Amino acid sequence: MKIRLYNARILDLSGDHNIRCGEVCVSGGLIEKVSYDNNAGSHEEVFDRQIDCHGNLLMRGFNNAHAHSAMTFLRSRADDKPTPIWLKDDVFPNEAKLTDEDIADFQRLAIMEYVSGGIVSAMDMYLRPDVTAEVFSKAGMRAVIVSGLNDFTSSIERFQDEFVRLNSMHPLISYKAGFHAEYTCRKERLERLSEIVRELKCPVYCHLSETAFEVEDCVRRTGCTPFDYLDSLGLFENGGGIYHGVHLTDEEIDRIRDRGVHVVINSGSNCKLASGIAPLKKMHDKGIRLALGTDGPASNNSLDMFREMYLTSVLCKLAEKDAACMDASFILDMAVKGSAGCMGLEDSGQIKAGNPADMILLDLFKPNMQPLNNIVKNIVYAGNVSNVIMTMVAGRILYENGEYDLGFDTEELLAKCAARCKRIFSGDTK
Amino acid sequence: MKIRLYNARILDLSGDHNIRCGEVCVSGGLIEKVSYDNNAGSHEEVFDRQIDCHGNLLMRGFNNAHAHSAMTFLRSRADDKPTPIWLKDDVFPNEAKLTDEDIADFQRLAIMEYVSGGIVSAMDMYLRPDVTAEVFSKAGMRAVIVSGLNDFTSSIERFQDEFVRLNSMHPLISYKAGFHAEYTCRKERLERLSEIVRELKCPVYCHLSETAFEVEDCVRRTGCTPFDYLDSLGLFENGGGIYHGVHLTDEEIDRIRDRGVHVVINSGSNCKLASGIAPLKKMHDKGIRLALGTDGPASNNSLDMFREMYLTSVLCKLAEKDAACMDASFILDMAVKGSAGCMGLEDSGQIKAGNPADMILLDLFKPNMQPLNNIVKNIVYAGNVSNVIMTMVAGRILYENGEYDLGFDTEELLAKCAARCKRIFSGDTK
Repeated sequence: MKIRLYNARILDLSGDHNIRCGEVCVSGGLIEKVSYDNNAGSHEEVFDRQIDCHGNLLMRGFNNAHAHSAMTFLRSRADDKPTPIWLKDDVFPNEAKLTDEDIADFQRLAIMEYVSGGIVSAMDMYLRPDVTAEVFSKAGMRAVIVSGLNDFTSSIERFQDEFVRLNSMHPLISYKAGFHAEYTCRKERLERLSEIVRELKCPVYCHLSETAFEVEDCVRRTGCTPFDYLDSLGLFENGGGIYHGVHLTDEEIDRIRDRGVHVVINSGSNCKLASGIAPLKKMHDKGIRLALGTDGPASNNSLDMFREMYLTSVLCKLAEKDAACMDASFILDMAVKGSAGCMGLEDSGQIKAGNPADMILLDLFKPNMQPLNNIVKNIVYAGNVSNVIMTMVAGRILYENGEYDLGFDTEELLAKCAARCKRIFSGDTK
Repeated sequence: MKIRLYNARILDLSGDHNIRCGEVCVSGGLIEKVSYDNNAGSHEEVFDRQIDCHGNLLMRGFNNAHAHSAMTFLRSRADDKPTPIWLKDDVFPNEAKLTDEDIADFQRLAIMEYVSGGIVSAMDMYLRPDVTAEVFSKAGMRAVIVSGLNDFTSSIERFQDEFVRLNSMHPLISYKAGFHAEYTCRKERLERLSEIVRELKCPVYCHLSETAFEVEDCVRRTGCTPFDYLDSLGLFENGGGIYHGVHLTDEEIDRIRDRGVHVVINSGSNCKLASGIAPLKKMHDKGIRLALGTDGPASNNSLDMFREMYLTSVLCKLAEKDAACMDASFILDMAVKGSAGCMGLEDSGQIKAGNPADMILLDLFKPNMQPLNNIVKNIVYAGNVSNVIMTMVAGRILYENGEYDLGFDTEELLAKCAARCKRIFSGDTK
């Protein structure tokens, strides 16, 4: 499939956030050519499709660096209650009822939300990596799957098997070492994981310091804050990433930087579960590699990187009591380049020949994007998913003007998800 | 125009947030009939239009209780800088260049954003109330205009003249007494306003306690916090409303309640300008009448009540360190009923015969609204403007599926706004 996108404003996130008018040719999953001469019509090449972008914005798509996609089934199921009760009464017992087919369909629902919101890849941690790999690759969306090793639903052996198998399964799929969290993995298991990742020389990912209680509890049990405890087991010798990172000491932040570990900010979830505001400015100033993620739809409740960018930006201004704090362009970089770096994807933020054709087209002529005083600030401070005209992953258009091309019937999927929810929640009086 | 909307889920915000399937007939600007028997097809009446809602959600539209609509021209013009510099360098000098025609077109741009986002009315404070009244009434949108009395651009006499004229000018337009803020109105002028509103027996609206500096400065100058100072001048004897209300003492909150004064929460602007988080839970628990507003697009930067609802909700959870704090249904009530009450509009939140036909149709079958575990929580925690299918004000459909019916050419308007911005910002190096 050879596609030409012309009459586009093309945003380059590799440097000064330049925007130039031009056109892009896509072929074989990659960007084949970018030209800024706007010499439309002079092409002798044959394209399968030529798209007039009408002056709208072509940019690299958003990479969602932390998600539990299948948790769509719990969206708005259990809000406005204390987090421990939510976990105990709503999340764990209902997750126990999930079949592989449930997980697959609830992930497909998340993929619809991703692509209609300009998200081209997700770093997903959930119960059945094999299902995730199958679902994402068939839908045409990029997934970086993280093993959610824990004491209850997984094993070291399964991780080792999946690591080999899923890393060579499909070009859209990669698989990373990870565990759920310090408080759900006993020490022996973490030590064993540490040995394995040392051998594999691979980075490790996990939830970390999401709540104040988690940190206090870890200190009480181990004498260390969570990062220091895990680092003492050698888990971060090859870098990796931590999700949330809300409650970190200054010393931990230094060590996180020294280890080259990425921190994924999950503002929506951190607010809604009342976990706190991550110390974004401090981490930024200390040179931490920062990424952005939605977390799962059970806690957020949407999978919307526009909302995540806005929230992350304004929470930082609020926490620092400084309207000037953290420029919008840095927040946009986090959502594209920062997340890609964390996920091990190509991360230049540029639309240039040879790069994967993971791009989105944003409508600049909806009223929320006008006037065009500053397009980058418009995206971060005023943009929303209604501005997404098209989402392309590896050269294939997965979403365009309300229509999906994901290899399944989307209307049918919604009906199936509803029936699955009915079964899962039956007997439940809510 | 007689319209029938059938196959709808109809949300009633007057009590328990019931949703029932049914149909609604609209005529002469009002809701004429609501029936829940779903006896589609049995009608002998003749309609100008019949709309199959396909099971989507019909509800009262959002009322935006605080805005400066024309400030669209400054959207993303001056972000990420300290608020005093933003005001001094960007807002005031550029506002001084505005012609009436500029204001009219920039308000039209805001109206496009309002109706495409499900907003049916706005309480607007800006430089030229006559222009605002003309623009909104011609576009078919409801406006409650507030006099922005101050020491620089307005006068008591102009207020008195506008109060009489604009309150009888058009059924969609009403006009309220108001002044910009304590710190922009000298005492003599406020005292004169107080005499007039005592005679008129009308409520008064103003910005109040938006920043900590404003409060400290007022205490230094007057010996009182802002609300108490203004109340001592008799300004709130007939109620009214305050915008922002971020930095209020417990005693002020008691007195605000006793005066029946509404507080309008402006979370987007309060975050982005680093003003702080309004004490929503405390005000709620003390029985304050609460409303929701976007503030102007120069500080927010969008006019999006979905984002405002989400932000207001999660900031409250965050500030109270309690995920259970402030149920989504209350936040939704604020955005519809609470704001209507503040603005002096019919405020039952119900779709019932005799009520004004100010309604929106929300798409429940976009992925972010699925599954339908809880529709109200979906709206507040996962909803966004892409869910707005249709917006009707006083029985007229102003927006539907991307198309506008506002009495002007929307494409031409965007071009005109761009040209106006170019003129206003010319000579400016940014």
